[in-house]
Amino acid sequence: MGPVMILSLDGEGPLYRQVTRALRQSIERGDLVAGERLPGTRRLAADLGVSRNIVIMAFDQLVIEGYVESRVGSGTVVADTRPMVGLSVPVKRQSESADTVKLSVEGKRLVDAAGQALDLARQPGKARYNFEYGLVEPDATSQAQWRRLMAQSIATAQFDYGHPAGEPGLREEVAKHLNNHRGLNIASDNVVIVSGSQQALDLVARLFVSPGDRVLVEEPQYQGARQAFVAAGANLLPSPVDADGMSIPEDAGRIRVAYVTPSHQFPTGVVMPAQRRFELLRWAASHGTLIVEDDYDSEFRYDSHPVQALAGLRSEAAVVYVGTFAKSLFPGLRLGYLAAPKSIANSLTRAKWLTDRCCSLPLQNALATFMASGDYRRHLRRMSRRYSQSRHALVSALNKWFGAKIEIGGGQAGIHLTVWFPELDGCMEATLIEFAMQVDCAVYPVSVYYIDQANKACPGLIMGYSSMQAADIEAAVERLATAWTPLFER
Amino acid sequence: MGPVMILSLDGEGPLYRQVTRALRQSIERGDLVAGERLPGTRRLAADLGVSRNIVIMAFDQLVIEGYVESRVGSGTVVADTRPMVGLSVPVKRQSESADTVKLSVEGKRLVDAAGQALDLARQPGKARYNFEYGLVEPDATSQAQWRRLMAQSIATAQFDYGHPAGEPGLREEVAKHLNNHRGLNIASDNVVIVSGSQQALDLVARLFVSPGDRVLVEEPQYQGARQAFVAAGANLLPSPVDADGMSIPEDAGRIRVAYVTPSHQFPTGVVMPAQRRFELLRWAASHGTLIVEDDYDSEFRYDSHPVQALAGLRSEAAVVYVGTFAKSLFPGLRLGYLAAPKSIANSLTRAKWLTDRCCSLPLQNALATFMASGDYRRHLRRMSRRYSQSRHALVSALNKWFGAKIEIGGGQAGIHLTVWFPELDGCMEATLIEFAMQVDCAVYPVSVYYIDQANKACPGLIMGYSSMQAADIEAAVERLATAWTPLFER
Repeated sequence: MGPVMILSLDGEGPLYRQVTRALRQSIERGDLVAGERLPGTRRLAADLGVSRNIVIMAFDQLVIEGYVESRVGSGTVVADTRPMVGLSVPVKRQSESADTVKLSVEGKRLVDAAGQALDLARQPGKARYNFEYGLVEPDATSQAQWRRLMAQSIATAQFDYGHPAGEPGLREEVAKHLNNHRGLNIASDNVVIVSGSQQALDLVARLFVSPGDRVLVEEPQYQGARQAFVAAGANLLPSPVDADGMSIPEDAGRIRVAYVTPSHQFPTGVVMPAQRRFELLRWAASHGTLIVEDDYDSEFRYDSHPVQALAGLRSEAAVVYVGTFAKSLFPGLRLGYLAAPKSIANSLTRAKWLTDRCCSLPLQNALATFMASGDYRRHLRRMSRRYSQSRHALVSALNKWFGAKIEIGGGQAGIHLTVWFPELDGCMEATLIEFAMQVDCAVYPVSVYYIDQANKACPGLIMGYSSMQAADIEAAVERLATAWTPLFER
Repeated sequence: MGPVMILSLDGEGPLYRQVTRALRQSIERGDLVAGERLPGTRRLAADLGVSRNIVIMAFDQLVIEGYVESRVGSGTVVADTRPMVGLSVPVKRQSESADTVKLSVEGKRLVDAAGQALDLARQPGKARYNFEYGLVEPDATSQAQWRRLMAQSIATAQFDYGHPAGEPGLREEVAKHLNNHRGLNIASDNVVIVSGSQQALDLVARLFVSPGDRVLVEEPQYQGARQAFVAAGANLLPSPVDADGMSIPEDAGRIRVAYVTPSHQFPTGVVMPAQRRFELLRWAASHGTLIVEDDYDSEFRYDSHPVQALAGLRSEAAVVYVGTFAKSLFPGLRLGYLAAPKSIANSLTRAKWLTDRCCSLPLQNALATFMASGDYRRHLRRMSRRYSQSRHALVSALNKWFGAKIEIGGGQAGIHLTVWFPELDGCMEATLIEFAMQVDCAVYPVSVYYIDQANKACPGLIMGYSSMQAADIEAAVERLATAWTPLFER
């Protein structure tokens, strides 16, 4: 007779797997020890009430897994599989253990930098009127087109890996778009397709910033960029935004990278005029500073046509131009692009390959077709009309209810504006938000975009209007007027 | 009279933009200097033969861009926009300049590491019979399902950013899949959805490896992993693969990470038995080494059922389990996953958020539906049958034509096997490939997967069979027999 075994099947999944699992557990528990012979397949099948083939399948599997060995003459015996026995630590499930593995210095810096950004990630909408920034949905026409495009992208897809810089057809369309609408003068091999502007910023930071390097950022600035540079170990130099955008530092020291949003400064909305643009380029060229131009919302401009991008101006300075489809299409798509001088584009392509090979081909192909057909331009025109109405409603209502009590910034472009409260103390930002919430309006602070709160002149709010209709905006601002009235009383 | 101006319109795009561009160029060229008055709109319109409104639009645009200013009493004058004049360097186009910006030390390491990988990237198929590894296409049934799923993913999509760890529905399906088929014991919050296994490896390297840290890799090893660790500055320790997979080093020093492919070693195809698995886990636990288990092709196994993953075995060692849909669905999809203890999964989620926010939502939703419906399991079964036939044809043909002249490795699983030539000198690998190409067969060297060629016992080829039918495989191996016969003659 073989050993007495207590095997209980757990009833989950195919029978042979239940038997395999039960035997494996017996061995792991030590019910069966190394060298010990397993019961015969016939007897075990009878004990378990299963067919003998089931048991044979289970034994075969355990041989493959190394738990048991088939020995000529002595049948199936347990292999020596229990090195765990020597361990003095209690056995826990994998998913609960392993807090002992520490992050590297670089890893901790990255996780810490991400932490703050993650805290700013979208929370479920909690107010009837939500002025959150960046909420974007394509309209019904574009959604219908995208349903077709996505289906078609599988029907015609290349299934293999694509070019790390992006599909040639999409790069061609992006280059055309940037040349025609942003005044660039590039070919498709200046373009790298990325998974949104955040990946572009992370790749640039990884390639050009060493720990301790100084990186110039606007104050206030886009937190996603700040954190990508901090993750790379950058020493950030905040440069105040004035009426012409980021001021040029007088600092003579080495600055590796300058990150700017000249066409609609984030979050203030200031447009940098040509003179400051040329000054910035001249300064960058003479300092050997790489300019990262983030043109995150240039597709929407209401009182004028888009200002020509820095990357389109003649200069000796190197500019990496970053753009995204998160505002012009929708954030969940996760496609963006960068345009750079060829040597830099080539390095960024290599980095893209190493970090995630390439962007999804079906998505790239759908987008390329959308752009080539002219539907993308038509989409932008329709969305622009819609946003223009919302913006007009917001500016009008704010002027009507608050007049000279507030200053509105950045309303001429994009999908948000900023509202400043020069009469109120800086600490009142939280109160403004709290009072707004009491009348079911969600508004958001500008202070999170400052490195040093001392640089903030007065309380400010960032108000996104891309997800709201004019009527709701009017109703919401009227509520805000009621809620905030006590704050202005003297 | 105002100044005499020579403006020529370039005929591209809307008229008002042609006028804007012509005026801007005049100012940049210095035809119009700061403070100088622009001609009246009426006169300019007449000179150019356009309507006056066109000229007014152009002027408005130039005001916004900062090239000109409107002054009460003196009309429109040129602003001081020419800081370029002081530069002694010749003016080049942006796309051609900027070779002066150097990569950081870290950036150069990353680009250099990527360089070699990029050279291994797919070249256009150049032979009638292509044994390239990893060529995968869904069959007609799955393609039809994916056309529907992709369309549906837009119809039902959330358009906003998703959770950085991945959509809850997809994480749930991945957790179920891993628990049922790989023996893991995890919940959905152990899972992070990534853009393919390469991103998982890059994130792990960024979080856990500091420059100079030692990382254990199999010898030979998957080059994508090697390069992700090299990019992080790792000091690689190659550990020979024997009949039981990667050998455990006797080294007592600190090793931060051990990267292994235990279920089908890449490229040799060796399956690590349970005993070695437990040894490895015990060794890792006692050294505080993080194990990265890359289970890149576990969905396809022919002579047995999948071996339980390391991450499913009870151990104190921390294991990050990495998987991909590049082999089970198709590489161009760019979706993969990792499973890790919660604290590590949380850190990786933060890193994912910082590097590219999240994976594309339409893709994630399509995949989640594909998995939840059971279509993914059915797809795997169909593909497995197809690959099994190809594999059988390849192994049979190789045995028939080469017999004892070769050794076949790793044929029991995945979508490739290795062929070794113990009778030939190591330097003959290139000759084998060259002779194969002369009979229109593309085969690929194993030597690229070795850090030290001295560790390679004899020439070896990696032969992928996922894109080839049995008849073609038979014809190809017959050709190879003819081509290689001279090499075996004594």
